[in-house]
Amino acid sequence: MEKMLNPRSIAVVGASDKKNKIGNILIKNLKNKKYTGSIFPINPRHKIIEGLKVHSSLAEVDKKIDLTIIALPAFLVLSIIDDCIANKIKNIVIISAGFAESGADGARREAELKKVAEENELNILGPNCLGFVNTHKNINASFAKKEIPAGNVGLISQSGAFITGLLDIAKEEDLGFSHVISLGNKTVLDEIDFLKYLADDPKTKVIGLYLENIKKGRLFYNEVSRITKKKPVLILKAGSSQKVQEAIMSHTGAMAGEIDVLKKAFREAGALYFENIANFWQTLKIFNNHKLPQNNKVVILTNAGGPGVIATDLIENKNNLDFYNFSAKEKEKVQKKLPVAASVENPIDILGDADSKRYEILLDELIKIKKIGTILALITPQAQTDTTNILQIIKKKEIKSPFPIIPILIGAKVKNAFQFPREVIDALEQLNNFQQFQENISKIKKEPLKFSVLASAKIKDFVNIAKEEKRGVFFYEESLELMRYYGINALKAPLIDADFKISKIPKKLVMKIDDPKILHKMAQGGVITGIKGPQEFKSNLQKLRKKFKNQKIIIQEQVEKGTEIIIGLKKDSNFGPVLMCGIGGILTEIFDEKFLWILPVNKAEIKKDLKKSKLKRIFEKEELNFNSLVEEIEKVGKVGWQNNWIKELDINPMFFYKDSKKPLAVDIKVKIDNS
Amino acid sequence: MEKMLNPRSIAVVGASDKKNKIGNILIKNLKNKKYTGSIFPINPRHKIIEGLKVHSSLAEVDKKIDLTIIALPAFLVLSIIDDCIANKIKNIVIISAGFAESGADGARREAELKKVAEENELNILGPNCLGFVNTHKNINASFAKKEIPAGNVGLISQSGAFITGLLDIAKEEDLGFSHVISLGNKTVLDEIDFLKYLADDPKTKVIGLYLENIKKGRLFYNEVSRITKKKPVLILKAGSSQKVQEAIMSHTGAMAGEIDVLKKAFREAGALYFENIANFWQTLKIFNNHKLPQNNKVVILTNAGGPGVIATDLIENKNNLDFYNFSAKEKEKVQKKLPVAASVENPIDILGDADSKRYEILLDELIKIKKIGTILALITPQAQTDTTNILQIIKKKEIKSPFPIIPILIGAKVKNAFQFPREVIDALEQLNNFQQFQENISKIKKEPLKFSVLASAKIKDFVNIAKEEKRGVFFYEESLELMRYYGINALKAPLIDADFKISKIPKKLVMKIDDPKILHKMAQGGVITGIKGPQEFKSNLQKLRKKFKNQKIIIQEQVEKGTEIIIGLKKDSNFGPVLMCGIGGILTEIFDEKFLWILPVNKAEIKKDLKKSKLKRIFEKEELNFNSLVEEIEKVGKVGWQNNWIKELDINPMFFYKDSKKPLAVDIKVKIDNS
Repeated sequence: MEKMLNPRSIAVVGASDKKNKIGNILIKNLKNKKYTGSIFPINPRHKIIEGLKVHSSLAEVDKKIDLTIIALPAFLVLSIIDDCIANKIKNIVIISAGFAESGADGARREAELKKVAEENELNILGPNCLGFVNTHKNINASFAKKEIPAGNVGLISQSGAFITGLLDIAKEEDLGFSHVISLGNKTVLDEIDFLKYLADDPKTKVIGLYLENIKKGRLFYNEVSRITKKKPVLILKAGSSQKVQEAIMSHTGAMAGEIDVLKKAFREAGALYFENIANFWQTLKIFNNHKLPQNNKVVILTNAGGPGVIATDLIENKNNLDFYNFSAKEKEKVQKKLPVAASVENPIDILGDADSKRYEILLDELIKIKKIGTILALITPQAQTDTTNILQIIKKKEIKSPFPIIPILIGAKVKNAFQFPREVIDALEQLNNFQQFQENISKIKKEPLKFSVLASAKIKDFVNIAKEEKRGVFFYEESLELMRYYGINALKAPLIDADFKISKIPKKLVMKIDDPKILHKMAQGGVITGIKGPQEFKSNLQKLRKKFKNQKIIIQEQVEKGTEIIIGLKKDSNFGPVLMCGIGGILTEIFDEKFLWILPVNKAEIKKDLKKSKLKRIFEKEELNFNSLVEEIEKVGKVGWQNNWIKELDINPMFFYKDSKKPLAVDIKVKIDNS
Repeated sequence: MEKMLNPRSIAVVGASDKKNKIGNILIKNLKNKKYTGSIFPINPRHKIIEGLKVHSSLAEVDKKIDLTIIALPAFLVLSIIDDCIANKIKNIVIISAGFAESGADGARREAELKKVAEENELNILGPNCLGFVNTHKNINASFAKKEIPAGNVGLISQSGAFITGLLDIAKEEDLGFSHVISLGNKTVLDEIDFLKYLADDPKTKVIGLYLENIKKGRLFYNEVSRITKKKPVLILKAGSSQKVQEAIMSHTGAMAGEIDVLKKAFREAGALYFENIANFWQTLKIFNNHKLPQNNKVVILTNAGGPGVIATDLIENKNNLDFYNFSAKEKEKVQKKLPVAASVENPIDILGDADSKRYEILLDELIKIKKIGTILALITPQAQTDTTNILQIIKKKEIKSPFPIIPILIGAKVKNAFQFPREVIDALEQLNNFQQFQENISKIKKEPLKFSVLASAKIKDFVNIAKEEKRGVFFYEESLELMRYYGINALKAPLIDADFKISKIPKKLVMKIDDPKILHKMAQGGVITGIKGPQEFKSNLQKLRKKFKNQKIIIQEQVEKGTEIIIGLKKDSNFGPVLMCGIGGILTEIFDEKFLWILPVNKAEIKKDLKKSKLKRIFEKEELNFNSLVEEIEKVGKVGWQNNWIKELDINPMFFYKDSKKPLAVDIKVKIDNS
């Protein structure tokens, strides 16, 4: 990867002398920089392009080529790849469009490309991409027209246009990049490869990712988890809505993963997730230009009441931001530096006539207070406001300060300040998500569940039998065995067979057929509730036997209703087994509150996620044991982690009771993954 | 008001020749404009200020003065007011600070000012304000330093700094104003007075309000309701959070109203409510610069997949925005105008090489489709993108189009386009709120409840007795009478007195003391549940009588539990009686879903507000009669509207049952307003 992104010699196949042609812009971009390596334009019909000697083919170049960029029509690309192989060139950027994104022919071409690349161990970026830029090595191997300022942000994008759009304002907005990488169709190299590189790149302090799909969820998750221990990873993921799932399919020929699972995976991995460009951009800007807050306590200082009030509202509406509380002593010290009329609450109102001198004196005092997390300095331009000086003072003071000081110049569009409080406060929320994630890494010591072999021989047999019988679903007694193995208390359901003893029937019972193929048993009359005594038992059994010939019939005690909870598992195509829990009964859909975990997961993580949930509050209100909920969820998590043959598992409902009565799984469905 | 905001002669008391002094800026601002009226600087120590003749006092001016602006220290203001009265000047702007906002002395001064103004029928803007600007008459009667571009927006602000902040970018961002009014302390004139004026001002197409408090809620509500039938009213209200309630109190010496009631009042009145400056500003900009959409169907056109996808996500996440669905015929027509590779779905992807010509041809076709609500034109600058031309084309086409076409130039900060999709889509949501409100005005024909006299003589007596007894709260039997009068089915609770017949006790009952002064009856042992038969009845009665001597004791049948709903009333200091409804039982706090109505309210409005509520979904899931819920809520609304002596009324719970069983109010508390 080092040779790819920091090559000493670059060939451009399809170099052109025609202005505005991609093959020309590429050469210009490469050449215009202080790049010290060699550039070899390749074109059989030219001698000189942009002052550089042109070779007619790769074979003609007598120096070793670290990187080849291909900017030819799609149908020519594969033959150039052959040339690369012949000339032992391993690193290739394919700019050309006309692959999977453009229909069946393109898709075939891309499949062929992938095959050749794998066979020959080629590193290929693209096709259908913009190229890449390595600012600190002065390499602009892209056809982006604008100059790209150097800085701390490593940007990886699945959309080339997204890059050109953002680069347009980068310089104007004081945002600089270490690397910019346009992924294109990700035929060979994808975001994971470049993440690995940027993770260890000392010039990259923060990584921004624009993604439309993620194909290797688990690997991505692991890689991001590793990186976020040292640097922030910001992800703008397109495609959270149904409409977009369709659009993306036609757009890049790739299915987007289930968005809820993705979001949770991002969060668990410590990445910051964004749904819109503005927030993504502003947060990158703050990471690039400011210190990282050490805690979530904000101080607002303002020279105007109104905007201070608005900013206060916005911060109060953020769950993870708080206000710094000045001690009486601190207040006194700060007040001494300000006019009597100024108010040293939080927000600190330094009055409309505040000039840069007042900002300086005040900030000198405030930066002594080490426990502040962030200062937001609101500046509303008024008669005595010397804006330029104030911004300079703030910049100078932040350098000496243990925390970030972020200037917001209300309404103004200037390089080194923000325009409105909201954009900064949204970003601050994300900065604190990152800071809190890093803090929690040490607190929640993740003790992953052991990935043991398949649960037990008995269950293994059940799976095999079910597969043989092409059932796809467990019988209830098989599900029970799975529950038993993991210590999950489930409602017994004896089969009414030859061994069945009527003397043992419960006082009040439910009788039902146990056929995985019949989906709506209740509607089809396959479930009879409220059966009392041997007489009713017999007559109902007869009724069922008549209606459902040769079916298994089971009975269950009609137990006391508890608080209904759903716990389940689902195999995600991207992330493997995902654990789910939510409120059961009629509230399921109304609450729309479900919790997901990428497995493995331990109790501490489950507890953390449910801490502020409605689910937990229901348990408190109903005086139920919240810890037992956490335990049951963890048990089901274990089931998922150790049984990769499960396609879906659904415990619905599990009853939770007051006092010390054990939770009880009342119905269990287990689907088998036949793929 | 016309003379105030469009005066033919203006005196400035406290005019100054010292640069940057407010008294100097005022004269310069007035003079620099093409203002055709007379300006009289008043100052006993000067002859000429900024080339104008100075008078030593108001009395010296020999022409009639329409407006006097006072810019003197606070302690001198009242004597100048006396001069104004002596010289028959009715319209006054007081710039000076040092009134209620600055402590006890200032508050006394303001009270005196208010008294004098009322006695002499003076129109006073301020004190503690920036002044006002009337761009179309070239009057800048403010000390805002910047030039204020003329346009369609009437801006009224309770914060002067908020105005200066926004004016700074107004020109740069293509936003113009008809009037800008800085309210200051609102001692005499307030937002309602200026709203009335701007409502009928033909130059004002949209009104923007920045408010920190609203004192006359009902009047405000009525005025805004009247205006929104013809123009949009945008309200940025500071102080939605607890923290801010405190800040505002110290800031302007005024209590903010209860925010939930305020928000509902805004919505009912058809105003658009904003919590942050950025959205407020961007929405004003769209109202000022674009057409109003006639429906909520959006078409996105984009020259880049990524940003198109992001915008699609954002629109899908808005409840009230939708995508326009092209008919097959429309699709075909549009496709003909585009390259084959372009995708005529919604978003329409017109490909990365789209130039202004392609935009023109496409837009010419699209503006024929009258049923489109809005076109968002996303432009991501790429190699072939001739941005300036494209923006011009869009502007030209919007003029001919029946709907707005809003350009978003990703990342770019230019005058006539937006930078990111989010800001536009947030604004679009609000535009559609306005459009839908206007549509609904005719649909929901509000038939206000009749405001009759106090319900009945009997209830009137109860109120008087309760007041005499200084109880403040109704006995249960009094509450029952109130319920009975409005046809609300409530659980009977016979008093155990001399007339009580033990033969009539229900099978299972609750016995409790009925003393409004004892708040936690249950905790104090004043409630006994589950009493069965005469034996238990007697022993428990004895127990209660012993513990609570001389207290009224009532019994209630222990009825079957239904779905619990809370319905209540509260007298808001600003808006009068407010009706409330929410989920009862343990879910009350967890759901955090309550509904408010400013009275009067009718069934259609209640239905509309509950249409997408969790409450309604619970009724559906539990197979309850939703209409009966609406009816009960309306009945309680009637109680509130016709009984202005009620401070609070709380029906908690009201049980709702399946089938045709009538809803039942199980506990009722009625508090009396003694003020």
